[in-house]
Amino acid sequence: MPLEIERKFLLGDFEPPDTAVRLRIEQGYIAIKDDGTEVRLRRIGGSRVLGVKRKASSVGAPVRIEVERELDEQEFTELWPATEGARLVKDRYTFEASGVTVHADVYRGGLAGLRTVEVEFGSEEEAAAFSAPEWFGAEVTGVKAYGNQTLATRGLPGS
Amino acid sequence: MPLEIERKFLLGDFEPPDTAVRLRIEQGYIAIKDDGTEVRLRRIGGSRVLGVKRKASSVGAPVRIEVERELDEQEFTELWPATEGARLVKDRYTFEASGVTVHADVYRGGLAGLRTVEVEFGSEEEAAAFSAPEWFGAEVTGVKAYGNQTLATRGLPGS
Repeated sequence: MPLEIERKFLLGDFEPPDTAVRLRIEQGYIAIKDDGTEVRLRRIGGSRVLGVKRKASSVGAPVRIEVERELDEQEFTELWPATEGARLVKDRYTFEASGVTVHADVYRGGLAGLRTVEVEFGSEEEAAAFSAPEWFGAEVTGVKAYGNQTLATRGLPGS
Repeated sequence: MPLEIERKFLLGDFEPPDTAVRLRIEQGYIAIKDDGTEVRLRRIGGSRVLGVKRKASSVGAPVRIEVERELDEQEFTELWPATEGARLVKDRYTFEASGVTVHADVYRGGLAGLRTVEVEFGSEEEAAAFSAPEWFGAEVTGVKAYGNQTLATRGLPGS
């Protein structure tokens, strides 16, 4: 069952380590619903993915259900116009640090200047027990202004 | 390229021919957007499908782009709650009549009493040239009140 439990932090200046894998991510939302459901198109490296996420009613925990399917280039291109006004581009650096796998996102385009870091966990207990290393900035887990949906549709917080 | 060109008509009383294939269809909409884009879950016979449809900007013609992917039972069940308030159930009878393949839909539940028939075409020319047989009722192609999206969210026209 693909449950996704993650915590997200702001990131100041940072130099990706040599071991970091860099992937360009372009994503756009076909739908963002009030109940938290989202339907997303994502091009990441050479793959194109249609994804649906739904918030599960778990006890206060940031648990989400996610279903993803690969698209071919033509399908992606045909559906992409449905994401107009709800897109973002970022470079994602994935590497091991402080004993966990981190995804550091450097935003591009209208969101240039923003950097965040995400850590995914296998359980809510693990997520709660995680102690952020010094080089992480303020935690923004669950902060709407820094959610990808809001960034894609509203731009930088305070802009 | 999966383009879908169809015409839709109301249907009075009708007796499905012995050759008709009957499938129960349950469908729910995860999203219905103002631009006509829809994200749909559909259980048809033994298969479960996630579909995204988008209206293409063709010249006045009812042409739609459609991408579909199979889901397994667990994925379908996990996403289904996202369709609350936007669902319908119908029995679809598919058979050959008047030289074309027709889908006669007999609606169930809150939409009981409604029957429609759809014909799909390979081209816009073919769609335009089609002459409806006598047993078809009024044409409702493009009539919003009889669109599946509206039926699923608003119920029977005039109700």
